[in-house]
Amino acid sequence: MASKLPTFSILWLPVLLDLLLLCSTFASATPLNMPRLGVIPDTEVWRLRAAQSSISSDFKTYFYTQTLDHFNYRPESYTTFQQRYVINFKYWGGAKSGAPILVYLGAEQSLDNINFDGFLTDHAPQFNALIVYIEHRYYGESVPFGKVQNASTLGYFSSSQALEDYAEIILDIKKNLSANGCPVIVIGGSYGGMLASWFRLKYPHIALGALASSAPILYFDDITPDDGFLSVASRVFKKTSKSCYNTILQSWAEIDKVASSQPQGQGLSILHNRFKTCGVSFTNLSELKGYLTYSIYARAAQYDYPRRSVDLICKAIDGTPKAGTTDIVGKIIAGVSAYKGNVSSKSNVPSALAPGNVQLNENTAWNWQTCTEMVMPIGGGINATLFPVPPFDLNSRIETCKSFYGVSPRPHWITTYFGGHDIKRVLKRFGSNIIFSNGLRDPYSVAGVLRSLSHSLVALITKQGSHCLDLLPASPDDPHWLTAQRSREVRIIARWITQYKADRAANR
Amino acid sequence: MASKLPTFSILWLPVLLDLLLLCSTFASATPLNMPRLGVIPDTEVWRLRAAQSSISSDFKTYFYTQTLDHFNYRPESYTTFQQRYVINFKYWGGAKSGAPILVYLGAEQSLDNINFDGFLTDHAPQFNALIVYIEHRYYGESVPFGKVQNASTLGYFSSSQALEDYAEIILDIKKNLSANGCPVIVIGGSYGGMLASWFRLKYPHIALGALASSAPILYFDDITPDDGFLSVASRVFKKTSKSCYNTILQSWAEIDKVASSQPQGQGLSILHNRFKTCGVSFTNLSELKGYLTYSIYARAAQYDYPRRSVDLICKAIDGTPKAGTTDIVGKIIAGVSAYKGNVSSKSNVPSALAPGNVQLNENTAWNWQTCTEMVMPIGGGINATLFPVPPFDLNSRIETCKSFYGVSPRPHWITTYFGGHDIKRVLKRFGSNIIFSNGLRDPYSVAGVLRSLSHSLVALITKQGSHCLDLLPASPDDPHWLTAQRSREVRIIARWITQYKADRAANR
Repeated sequence: MASKLPTFSILWLPVLLDLLLLCSTFASATPLNMPRLGVIPDTEVWRLRAAQSSISSDFKTYFYTQTLDHFNYRPESYTTFQQRYVINFKYWGGAKSGAPILVYLGAEQSLDNINFDGFLTDHAPQFNALIVYIEHRYYGESVPFGKVQNASTLGYFSSSQALEDYAEIILDIKKNLSANGCPVIVIGGSYGGMLASWFRLKYPHIALGALASSAPILYFDDITPDDGFLSVASRVFKKTSKSCYNTILQSWAEIDKVASSQPQGQGLSILHNRFKTCGVSFTNLSELKGYLTYSIYARAAQYDYPRRSVDLICKAIDGTPKAGTTDIVGKIIAGVSAYKGNVSSKSNVPSALAPGNVQLNENTAWNWQTCTEMVMPIGGGINATLFPVPPFDLNSRIETCKSFYGVSPRPHWITTYFGGHDIKRVLKRFGSNIIFSNGLRDPYSVAGVLRSLSHSLVALITKQGSHCLDLLPASPDDPHWLTAQRSREVRIIARWITQYKADRAANR
Repeated sequence: MASKLPTFSILWLPVLLDLLLLCSTFASATPLNMPRLGVIPDTEVWRLRAAQSSISSDFKTYFYTQTLDHFNYRPESYTTFQQRYVINFKYWGGAKSGAPILVYLGAEQSLDNINFDGFLTDHAPQFNALIVYIEHRYYGESVPFGKVQNASTLGYFSSSQALEDYAEIILDIKKNLSANGCPVIVIGGSYGGMLASWFRLKYPHIALGALASSAPILYFDDITPDDGFLSVASRVFKKTSKSCYNTILQSWAEIDKVASSQPQGQGLSILHNRFKTCGVSFTNLSELKGYLTYSIYARAAQYDYPRRSVDLICKAIDGTPKAGTTDIVGKIIAGVSAYKGNVSSKSNVPSALAPGNVQLNENTAWNWQTCTEMVMPIGGGINATLFPVPPFDLNSRIETCKSFYGVSPRPHWITTYFGGHDIKRVLKRFGSNIIFSNGLRDPYSVAGVLRSLSHSLVALITKQGSHCLDLLPASPDDPHWLTAQRSREVRIIARWITQYKADRAANR
């Protein structure tokens, strides 16, 4: 299939990128000093099936003069910046017919990096829908203050501001197109999925419904156990291959043993040299363990389908060393190599400009978010048996964020503003029209809404699914369960729209 | 009844004050140069039935270290101020019993000015409820930056910040009292009623339900006709007395005639001298007409019950000049005198400190709100037949606000953030547990929710009711319809609590 793809450099996969950032960011309690992968998830690129050429011609680019600070009235609050969005009119039935508007809520990536050819484009024709993608503030070309930032300029970078940005742009589009009677469905994946579900909850007067794909809205405060993420990854490996699981489990002690086998750090050098062959570098053992845990194993589970990444790793681990079966480190390296392929991963450590300034890019931008609101307490623990990483440490996060950005996280903000505790009880009699979709091989699914909250707050899960799969472009190769999940999503959205039109017709 | 009251100076009536400010503020398109009444609505004081002594002993005062700016992460956002709230533990059944918490969301007045002895205290015993009153930021003792302010310091003064303040304090109280299982009902009147309904919509995870009394949440943008407020006042006078209505209608031309009856402003002097007898002063005719319209007639309708203020005015107008029946101005003055009684009204024009600074008090604070978010387009028009005041003029409002505070209104903010357009269609399938109560003699009721939106978004109206009556302390003199309205409110709230407890018990 890879041969069908256009050249690599212009391809970006939104949800992968999305979660790659999410994933690599939460990689430890000190997200900023962890090894980072490049922003392009090399090993996943083959999943793309979009043709770049069709994208550029169908989407028209616009800029909205956006208010910097929606919630205050200080003189500086009225500062504006240009926020980018794109529209595809190709399938739209027009304002008079009340044809719907599908709005993809941009998350932690540039609009340039979004693969347009996914769920929205696949299903716009049957809905006669307008397609809109809006870029999130501080990403891509929608950046106030330019590329060098500090805590004062980044300070307006928050999810509540972003949601209000979306509200204003959607209303502006509807006004410009005289499309007042056209229902809006918001769609997003991962962090963007959180935004989509929160948008429906906070702005029901603007969005009729939301498709929130792989949105871990319950990974805040103490709602989900800290080790939930890794416990899922652990389970996925155990289910895939017991021997693979056992090899990985044994590998940590083996790694320790090799490291301490020689005096004066020479053992570490041996490890260095061996792991270099699969493009992994590290400065100490915990960095290596963190990298293997989050950037290889957990990530393989997260993006498992359709490449069956965990299978791939386990087959290599289980099968490789025909000779020298005791060389556990060799098995691990074989597994990592199989996963990463022969594409060298780029190092992309966020760079700080001294003092108090940062160079804004997608890594530093997302890290800012993890240093303010996106405090997801992901770490090791008793249920994450496969992974010897430390538990989440809020104090360490706080110190890192203070030193890097001069900002303090607000770990309770998300649950205070958006809720999350007792979600079933709270939303069972409040709210409507949200689809929470999750794939259970995705470690993030542990913090997703996996059971329907009411008849119109619906959970759709796939046991074999991984992260944000439903938002990817459909393919003839897709398994039945994935096609079925997308069909249910489309049927539910169609029902919302039918009901909306009936209500309008009845003037109810 | 007046003899039962404690001394005047320590008595304040929340909802009257509330709407007095609301009322006197929107008094014209240029709110800041209108004649103002004192903050104490003298003529209504007799309605108070509370004993100040019982209040102070039952309520304990607390201060919460509140974050200045919840929505941004700038270094200044982390500034804190002390926010005041009070708690009455007297009736509370305790955390273990899951007894509810009634929270009065403070609006545009100091907590000192709130009459505690109203709906909450009357009904707390039957609910075994804890009573909490929280002061709104920038009022009373909950003022960041002190008494002299400018646009930079006032800039954090917004309804969204205030709602988040309430969220944090309520969560803090519940945490401190280990009251996680205690349902919270938020209650407010007028602007506070808007806050209550919005709080339930935005924070359903914190408030189980809301009682929003006389909340004109639809007086924004173009949802309600600009002249709706005055058209209700007009109708109330017409229904009360056709001859009174006609006299007022004729009086405007008569006032013009007197004013122009003498050269060089001497006609105006004649009017001055005559109106002085009832404590009214003005600098030009439109000021006089605006004052009579908003501060006398509309206000009488708004606070009509139980003093029957419109009756009072009309009886005086209809009955007074046995001799000289053609003296229409004399009739008007008799009506104004009857309404105002013999208490002289205090002038309380907001004072500006030059340049760019203002002295913060309840008037300047509320005016700030009308200059930022609370842009209610109230004015004259074809349906407000009784009142010769100009239509609402947004440009004039903008200019006034810029010159006084250096701030520009955002007239679309409320409808963008909270909604309002097509409210019936939007909320019929979204949200729950809000009571919208209104009295139809209240001119503000024109922008209230007067029909139930769903089975749990309920409108309760009283044809003879006026503004926020249901929140006032019950009295044996109360008419049946008022007692019935309060009973229905209590029954509905009780039902929410019963359902909440059943859901918790069933772990749903």
